[in-house]
Amino acid sequence: MAKIADKYLKVDPWKIVEEGFDPERNRVSESIFSLGNEYMGVRGYPEEGYGGDTLLGSYFNGLFEESKVNAHYKGIIKSLRFMVNAVDWLYTRITVDGETLDMAQCQFSDYRRELDFKSGSYSREFIWKLKNGKSLKLSFERFVSMDVSNLGCQRIVFEPLNFSGTVEVRTGLDFSVIHEDQGRCYWEVLQQGQENGVIGILGETTHTKNRLFSGFQIDAPKALETTAIEGDRFIGLDVRLPLEQGVKSTFDKFVINYAEKDVATDQDTLWNKGLELAAQHIHPSVSFDSLAREQVNYWSGVWADSDIKIEGDPENQQGIRFCIFQMYQTYHGDNPGFNIGAKGLTGEAYRGLAFWDTESYCLPFYIFNNPKAAKSLLEFRYKSLPYALQRARELDCEGAFYPIATIDGTESCDLWQHSNLQLHVGTAVAYGIRHYVNITGDKSFLYEKGLEMLIQISRFYATRGQWGQKTGQFGYYGVMGPDEFQLMVNNNCYINLMAKKLFEYTLDVIDNMHEAEGTSFSELVQRLNLTEQEQANWRNCAEHMRIPKDDETSIYEEHDGFFDMPHLDIHSIPVTEFPLYSHWSYDRLYRYDMIKQPDVLMFMFLYSGQFSVEEKRANYDYYEPRCIHESSLSPSIHSIIAAEIGKPEEAYKFFEFATRLDLDNYNRNTREGLHTTSISAAWMNIVYGFGGMRSDGDRLVFSPSIPERWEGYSFPITFKGTKLVVEVNKSRAFIRALSGEAVELVIYNHTYNVDHSGIEIALEEVGR
Amino acid sequence: MAKIADKYLKVDPWKIVEEGFDPERNRVSESIFSLGNEYMGVRGYPEEGYGGDTLLGSYFNGLFEESKVNAHYKGIIKSLRFMVNAVDWLYTRITVDGETLDMAQCQFSDYRRELDFKSGSYSREFIWKLKNGKSLKLSFERFVSMDVSNLGCQRIVFEPLNFSGTVEVRTGLDFSVIHEDQGRCYWEVLQQGQENGVIGILGETTHTKNRLFSGFQIDAPKALETTAIEGDRFIGLDVRLPLEQGVKSTFDKFVINYAEKDVATDQDTLWNKGLELAAQHIHPSVSFDSLAREQVNYWSGVWADSDIKIEGDPENQQGIRFCIFQMYQTYHGDNPGFNIGAKGLTGEAYRGLAFWDTESYCLPFYIFNNPKAAKSLLEFRYKSLPYALQRARELDCEGAFYPIATIDGTESCDLWQHSNLQLHVGTAVAYGIRHYVNITGDKSFLYEKGLEMLIQISRFYATRGQWGQKTGQFGYYGVMGPDEFQLMVNNNCYINLMAKKLFEYTLDVIDNMHEAEGTSFSELVQRLNLTEQEQANWRNCAEHMRIPKDDETSIYEEHDGFFDMPHLDIHSIPVTEFPLYSHWSYDRLYRYDMIKQPDVLMFMFLYSGQFSVEEKRANYDYYEPRCIHESSLSPSIHSIIAAEIGKPEEAYKFFEFATRLDLDNYNRNTREGLHTTSISAAWMNIVYGFGGMRSDGDRLVFSPSIPERWEGYSFPITFKGTKLVVEVNKSRAFIRALSGEAVELVIYNHTYNVDHSGIEIALEEVGR
Repeated sequence: MAKIADKYLKVDPWKIVEEGFDPERNRVSESIFSLGNEYMGVRGYPEEGYGGDTLLGSYFNGLFEESKVNAHYKGIIKSLRFMVNAVDWLYTRITVDGETLDMAQCQFSDYRRELDFKSGSYSREFIWKLKNGKSLKLSFERFVSMDVSNLGCQRIVFEPLNFSGTVEVRTGLDFSVIHEDQGRCYWEVLQQGQENGVIGILGETTHTKNRLFSGFQIDAPKALETTAIEGDRFIGLDVRLPLEQGVKSTFDKFVINYAEKDVATDQDTLWNKGLELAAQHIHPSVSFDSLAREQVNYWSGVWADSDIKIEGDPENQQGIRFCIFQMYQTYHGDNPGFNIGAKGLTGEAYRGLAFWDTESYCLPFYIFNNPKAAKSLLEFRYKSLPYALQRARELDCEGAFYPIATIDGTESCDLWQHSNLQLHVGTAVAYGIRHYVNITGDKSFLYEKGLEMLIQISRFYATRGQWGQKTGQFGYYGVMGPDEFQLMVNNNCYINLMAKKLFEYTLDVIDNMHEAEGTSFSELVQRLNLTEQEQANWRNCAEHMRIPKDDETSIYEEHDGFFDMPHLDIHSIPVTEFPLYSHWSYDRLYRYDMIKQPDVLMFMFLYSGQFSVEEKRANYDYYEPRCIHESSLSPSIHSIIAAEIGKPEEAYKFFEFATRLDLDNYNRNTREGLHTTSISAAWMNIVYGFGGMRSDGDRLVFSPSIPERWEGYSFPITFKGTKLVVEVNKSRAFIRALSGEAVELVIYNHTYNVDHSGIEIALEEVGR
Repeated sequence: MAKIADKYLKVDPWKIVEEGFDPERNRVSESIFSLGNEYMGVRGYPEEGYGGDTLLGSYFNGLFEESKVNAHYKGIIKSLRFMVNAVDWLYTRITVDGETLDMAQCQFSDYRRELDFKSGSYSREFIWKLKNGKSLKLSFERFVSMDVSNLGCQRIVFEPLNFSGTVEVRTGLDFSVIHEDQGRCYWEVLQQGQENGVIGILGETTHTKNRLFSGFQIDAPKALETTAIEGDRFIGLDVRLPLEQGVKSTFDKFVINYAEKDVATDQDTLWNKGLELAAQHIHPSVSFDSLAREQVNYWSGVWADSDIKIEGDPENQQGIRFCIFQMYQTYHGDNPGFNIGAKGLTGEAYRGLAFWDTESYCLPFYIFNNPKAAKSLLEFRYKSLPYALQRARELDCEGAFYPIATIDGTESCDLWQHSNLQLHVGTAVAYGIRHYVNITGDKSFLYEKGLEMLIQISRFYATRGQWGQKTGQFGYYGVMGPDEFQLMVNNNCYINLMAKKLFEYTLDVIDNMHEAEGTSFSELVQRLNLTEQEQANWRNCAEHMRIPKDDETSIYEEHDGFFDMPHLDIHSIPVTEFPLYSHWSYDRLYRYDMIKQPDVLMFMFLYSGQFSVEEKRANYDYYEPRCIHESSLSPSIHSIIAAEIGKPEEAYKFFEFATRLDLDNYNRNTREGLHTTSISAAWMNIVYGFGGMRSDGDRLVFSPSIPERWEGYSFPITFKGTKLVVEVNKSRAFIRALSGEAVELVIYNHTYNVDHSGIEIALEEVGR
């Protein structure tokens, strides 16, 4: 892998710290210092205005705009939707003696910024050296409330070092933000004004008519003069703040943001809802400090539930905590209408869209840490089932076809890589349902919503599949599997195998529900018009599913004809040609035995229990040398399998990119936003890789190992309602229940009943 | 084939006649009544203004606009170019007693229009019944000069049937035309005014800065009052013409159009060039009648050279003459910078772009009828070689990659059907060079320009191809062959075979030129840096080219894996689902053994001499039942092969769509423009199909047959400078030289020396 670290941040177990300001790295840092609370996200941009390279990004989960697609043919989507850049609620301008602060223009020193995982706050400080010789120390702090998702808080502290005087602060709410990817602002202002002490503004997107209320109040003890200001898509206040040499003056701003996607809500109702929320959450008894304490409380709960500790490796300790922190910031399941964009709420790349990453990479983290959030993610798919049903119709199929890229449940991927050919979302949703239910035991979700999705997904796969003329087997023609370097193939092994498992699981659940829930099952059968005939068809498809494999070598063929694809020694590609998408004509990627990311190995991970270690080794040895890892999702899966087949050095080599993918900017595109969904792979890498956990079978399995460089590590797991902690040191593993009932676990092939007193076991060599 | 004729035009051997006006069919007729002279084309729209459904289309060969493509990846083109709708030089408005003529609003009767193949003129007449009871008979006539490509002429004759009075005519040049496909006007006016009696206007396209001068003069004997008029992108005259009951008053307009694509030409020069052309061609000694006579002269020459006569089948007689007429209108080789758009100059569909149709379908017509025009078409490819070299670089290949769709030599096809995967243009150009040189004997073109193209094309195919890992053979991965229902396959048999032939021919020509033209050959070798090593490589690639074939059945496999593609009985598709592109999700087309158009059969036609009749029969019997013929290029190739393998009924069945494809609107999209390039397939269908001509070998071959319904037919052929005529009646064929030296021909496997006294042979049964 041609990936090189760019290390410029301080290593700290609980913080990200940057000292000194490098304009070249500002966008990277803006991504890393992003804040979010699932409802809204804001990049770490300088809120005081910055003339240099910046992406002033403020995003709201599920708030979208769209651009029309000139679609001439049936089955091509008609509009591309994207998470739209929204109100700059941190808008600030600072002027002293006629000089306005702008780090691109002004002199400053002692620059430092921090992101604190324990408080969830982002702070920044530096000393501004004015042209007239005055020195003003500035500290900025901001957070988005985890308890009150509509609330954002900003603090600015002014400390004049060598003068007394006045600072002029313009603060406000700015809807004139440019959505950079499209080069335009999508907002019109419907209403603005001051009411009940709240300065509010209501914006509406041009095409989709999504609306956003934003209102603020300030808390500045010594503010003497304030003037209301209204501008183009802007409302705010000018404040003159007297400063005294050596004394810190504090300026706090509280903002309520409220997004409304329902076009039926009338404007007055919406405006008043915004004001109500402001009255409810911004009142005299709250202060920046009191709200900041609540943040600390919230995060201490998160760390108690989900912290992974690594001893002897401060860089990865910081890295994995950053990952967990970002996972919670992006999503914690408060709202079943939200999903997880590939870049979370941290940038415009991938247009804020959610992919199969959600179920394949993110869901396990939530299943084992925050089952409520896991359920919420699945609820998103249930909520958007009508869109998936409609999309299947557009593709001349039955049942539900889930979109490969979506913000609201509709498909937002067009001819580039042909969304119509990408069948790996439906089976990922089905896998997610199975995984969630198996680990949590939540049968009521399965029977109330899960099975309906399974049936509709199965219907799609039954009608999209076809029978080969020569092989007489069932399979999928004209598809792209997870490996995006094979644009259009027949019988992709991953897709075929996942479809086979889908049919089998759906049929199992039907049988189980039939037995367990006779009445509601009958209702479901009737409502969905589920017939014996179609079940028989699914069984037949599953039984005759084509799984291309060379029996002599035990190597599964990624798709029909893959073994004849021209060979390329990927190590012969000059490092300057990476990333290949930027340096190679895109079609050239499609005609080698080179793969972008795990495809055969992916199903070997997902259905780990179905394959022997020998099979995994044979397939790893064949596919890994052909894998370019140009997906951020790739290294962790390879690391997990390498650990299992007894290649600990390779396992560690691939792990190196996992926790610090963004902190060390390995893919050179962190500036566009964080690799949020890949971040979850870091968690899997530790728990499934070194912890050796397998959760695809009936029982939960652990085969712990430890990287040579580490002294020890530990991680918590919630399994069937019991909270477990797994601790591993150089020689032994210790697993115990922190709360809940005893559970049965398999450790190195032996079954144990684990309760609060725990089980201690000597480490064994894995995969040898 | 689910194609149904819509017959509403009168059958006439030398004309297209429509009686009565059907607004529903107006656009279809506008296409059919199109005029063109290679330089410019104008649809048969009502020039007096029409409030109903019309496509006011006026096009100039090679004059283009472009729209940007949001291309994120290397190898995707950055702009789509298209032939832009240009000046309405026929602009007319006619008012009597305050009522303005508009067929969508006014009462009229006795409507009739004609397109005359002998004069190349389009005329239209009807009686306008005014609201006040007056009746005015109107006759419109127009033509575009074949001798002076810049000149267009319009005549309007007014005959008041029951009154005397005045008609007000507004005539002018209108640049405010809407390019319908993009819904906007692309023209800005740079200059306009009256100079030397010419009323001129100079327009410029928005993005590409193509410029077009248009200037006119009128000739109206009794015009009393004229007033100059200037409007938005418009200049013209208001003319008041006195009318006398029962007397015809004539109003003529002469227009000079001059297109300039060179942005370096300064505006004054361009303006003056327009005025000069006007002075040169519109002067007192020319009249509408004198120019019309020149037209008749021109067309009589065309018919003397190229007429195909069919006895006993008036519909196809009319049809084939319409085809030949449209071929000459669209292209006759005056300008090597022009090519043939898929719809000629008759509409906006296919964006005025030229495809491989030019070399594969149109070129034979010109080779055998108008070798100068054939050479001009090949010159287009030579002229655009620099673009093809550049495009190959963009695709990470060497040599020349010719565009699948182009107006100026650059690629104008993007992700829809991936231009990067379509490799059938380069080999078509090479085939065209070989075909042209073999039939005309023009070695100087071959050595001066042809070989350079062949070498650069071979370089592309050598670097684009790859070696199969299992087969050890050379071939092409990630391609789309002629059959567009297989979007992306490996080792398309057509592409592989054509590439093999390309390499072999290039090597042959190199050897021949080396021998024949030592000095200029050395110069070429040096200039192109042609090495022995690369020639050896081409030889090796050709020798080891993969040609997928089932030896038992003699059936060539369209591509690797085609025989396993799920089977679909195409006759089971309801007729209401055609055309499939409109009714099926586009991706569904890609996953059957259903094909859109000949692919294996196409190379069996092109290299006919390489395959036995038995092989052709086996492949026809396999592929024809799988072919949906959704390309207008498909039926004729099937007809030609059916004739050869002894299936005369099928040959005639497929022929039925050839000559009258547009006249009977078989594909239901003639409204968008004529299927200009398919029109040429009609010519091939008669000459190669019934005439049994084969021109792919060293000698010219004929195996004549005659459809049962016909009494006789004849066609002329120019071969190695000798003009031959082939006449066939129910029992015999007669071939003789009209001019030129005696030539050797093969007729039913016997070799004859044919001179002006001719050879007469009894018809034999073909293919039995």
